[in-house]
Amino acid sequence: MEQSFFLKLDANGLVPAVVQDCETQAVLMVAWMNQEAYELTRRTGQVHFWSRSRQEIWRKGATSGNTLTLTAMWIDCDSDTLLVQVKPAGPACHTGNISCFYKQIK
Amino acid sequence: MEQSFFLKLDANGLVPAVVQDCETQAVLMVAWMNQEAYELTRRTGQVHFWSRSRQEIWRKGATSGNTLTLTAMWIDCDSDTLLVQVKPAGPACHTGNISCFYKQIK
Repeated sequence: MEQSFFLKLDANGLVPAVVQDCETQAVLMVAWMNQEAYELTRRTGQVHFWSRSRQEIWRKGATSGNTLTLTAMWIDCDSDTLLVQVKPAGPACHTGNISCFYKQIK
Repeated sequence: MEQSFFLKLDANGLVPAVVQDCETQAVLMVAWMNQEAYELTRRTGQVHFWSRSRQEIWRKGATSGNTLTLTAMWIDCDSDTLLVQVKPAGPACHTGNISCFYKQIK
């Protein structure tokens, strides 16, 4: 891993990562990356996260096949949040919805 | 405040809120809401957050004039993240950039 890391990690060593479809611009999901997930994403071009519930690295789509291929990555002004633009291979949500944000608050 | 709250708040009583321009679809910023910020946003139609650094409710644009008018709100499959679609009155970022995500990682 890199010696000094440019992202400002939270107390758990994580940053939120907003995933956006590079073509439709839809916000697909929000998950968390640690330094390892970030570096794996950069190195492989396939989006990886840190699963807070399972406490392990998770390559999105490893089980479902619904991978996310990285197209561009941005950090915010505070360097504590990532915007990850992707080309999705299928629905991003485990429910089968294209986006995890399928429930509108009325 | 509502008696039982449908959002799953984290250990600090917060959820991340991704703010997206309703017209350009650009992701403008990510900030945090507690129950009060959520309810103020719903009631007033002006986006409010919880400032973790100042530990207070913060109406976006109260000082700068760069307010965010709510157009739609969505929750994700886990009910622990908000997608807030808005019409921005000006640049969302305190740096004067339209979006806080103006630094691309090369």
